[in-house]
Amino acid sequence: ELRDELIASFQPKLLAGKKLLITAGPTFEAIDPVRGITNHSSGKMGFAIARAAQEAGAEVTLIAGPVHLPTPPHVRRIDVQSAQQMFDAVLPQAPLHDVFVATAAVADWRPAVMNEHKIKKDGKKLAPSFELTENPDILAAVASLPDKPWCVGFAAESQDLLTHAREKLLRKNVPLIVGNLGPATFGRDDNTLVLVDAAGHRELPAGDKLALARQLVAEIARRTAGV
Amino acid sequence: ELRDELIASFQPKLLAGKKLLITAGPTFEAIDPVRGITNHSSGKMGFAIARAAQEAGAEVTLIAGPVHLPTPPHVRRIDVQSAQQMFDAVLPQAPLHDVFVATAAVADWRPAVMNEHKIKKDGKKLAPSFELTENPDILAAVASLPDKPWCVGFAAESQDLLTHAREKLLRKNVPLIVGNLGPATFGRDDNTLVLVDAAGHRELPAGDKLALARQLVAEIARRTAGV
Repeated sequence: ELRDELIASFQPKLLAGKKLLITAGPTFEAIDPVRGITNHSSGKMGFAIARAAQEAGAEVTLIAGPVHLPTPPHVRRIDVQSAQQMFDAVLPQAPLHDVFVATAAVADWRPAVMNEHKIKKDGKKLAPSFELTENPDILAAVASLPDKPWCVGFAAESQDLLTHAREKLLRKNVPLIVGNLGPATFGRDDNTLVLVDAAGHRELPAGDKLALARQLVAEIARRTAGV
Repeated sequence: ELRDELIASFQPKLLAGKKLLITAGPTFEAIDPVRGITNHSSGKMGFAIARAAQEAGAEVTLIAGPVHLPTPPHVRRIDVQSAQQMFDAVLPQAPLHDVFVATAAVADWRPAVMNEHKIKKDGKKLAPSFELTENPDILAAVASLPDKPWCVGFAAESQDLLTHAREKLLRKNVPLIVGNLGPATFGRDDNTLVLVDAAGHRELPAGDKLALARQLVAEIARRTAGV
C-alpha cells in the first residue's frame, strides 16, 4: 500500500490540468427483473487507466457498469447498469472533459421489451425468443459533439483485430483506437494492446494492465499536448 | 477472523456424518465469445449455507456458477459457467451425497446456437434475434434419481411467492422449497426466507444470510434426522 502510493506519487504529471472521462466494465441489459444480457468484461483495464491518469495528474471521472472493483484513489465514480444509462451519464459529462476514453464493453443490443415480472417456464410452452433493439453508440455520439473531447475507443475482437480496429477508427471518427485481443485476456491482469491511428499501428510492450495503462496515458498525453 | 472461527467452532454439530451437495450463484449462457445471458444472483445465500453446513459438521461440496466470493473454509468447490456444465457436475455427485440444496439461479434457457466469433454490428443489419432452447432441469433430474439425496429447492420470485413455491414443490417432487423474495434481496447480506413443504409454510425470522443459513441447516438436520 505505502509502496504503491510512493510509486504513484513519482509518476510524471503528464496530464496535469487535464480532465479525463473514462467508461469501464460491461453493461447489463435486463430481460426481466432477474435475467439479462451481459458480457465478460471485468472492467480492470478501464479502472487501471483511471488510476494511471489520476496518478499522472488528471482529474478523472469514471463511469462504470456492474463490476466488482474498488474505486481508484481520488477518482470520481458513477455506477450504471445498462448501455442507455451509460449513454445518459456520459453525454452531459463529455463536453466538460478534455479526453474521453471508452473502454466499456457496451452491449450493442438490448431486449426490445423489459418484462416487469420474471418470465416463467411452464413446462409446456416453447422457449421464448427475444426481439432485440440497438443501443445508442456512446463513442460515436460523443465524437460527433460540437465541443467534443479528444476520443479514444477500444476494440475487443476474437479475430481480425487490426481490420476491425481500423474500421472502427473511421466509422466512429476518432483519432485513436486501442485494440485488445479480447477473449484471451478477459479478467486477467495482463494484456496485449495495439494502438491504431490514421498513420498506422504500434503494439505496446506487454505488461500487466497498470503498466499498459501508464503507457497508454503517456501516449494520450503526448498526442493531446498540442490540443 | 478469530472471533468468526470461535463462533463457527461452537455451532452444534447437527449435520455430523452427513454429506451435502450445494449449488450456488448464477449461470452464464454464452451467445458468442464475449456476450451471454445471466442473472442477478450473487451466490451469497448458497455460500452462506455451505459455510453453515460445514460448521454444523457436514462434508460439503459446493458447485458454483460465476461469482466473486471466497470459498468457505473446508468446503470442496467446483466452478462452472453454464447450466449444462452445472448439470454435468451435479448429476454424478448427487448419489454420493445425503442432501442436495439447489440454491443456484440456473438459467431456464440458453441461446440455441453459440457463435464461435463475436457477432458484429454492421450499422445496416437489423438487430439479431436469438432462438433459445431449454436447459436441463437440475433439481428435477436429481429428485428423480433412484438413489436420490434429500432435496431442497429454492424459489426466487418477484410476485406470488407462495403459489410459485408450492407449485415448484409438486412439479419437482421434492420435500422442501425455500422461498426467497428475489429482486428485493439480490446481492444484499440480509434476506427473508419462507419454508414451504407438504404440510404448509413458515417464515424464518429475518436476519443476515449466515443467520438464515444456520436456521435452514438446523431445519434440514431436523427433517433428515430419521432419513
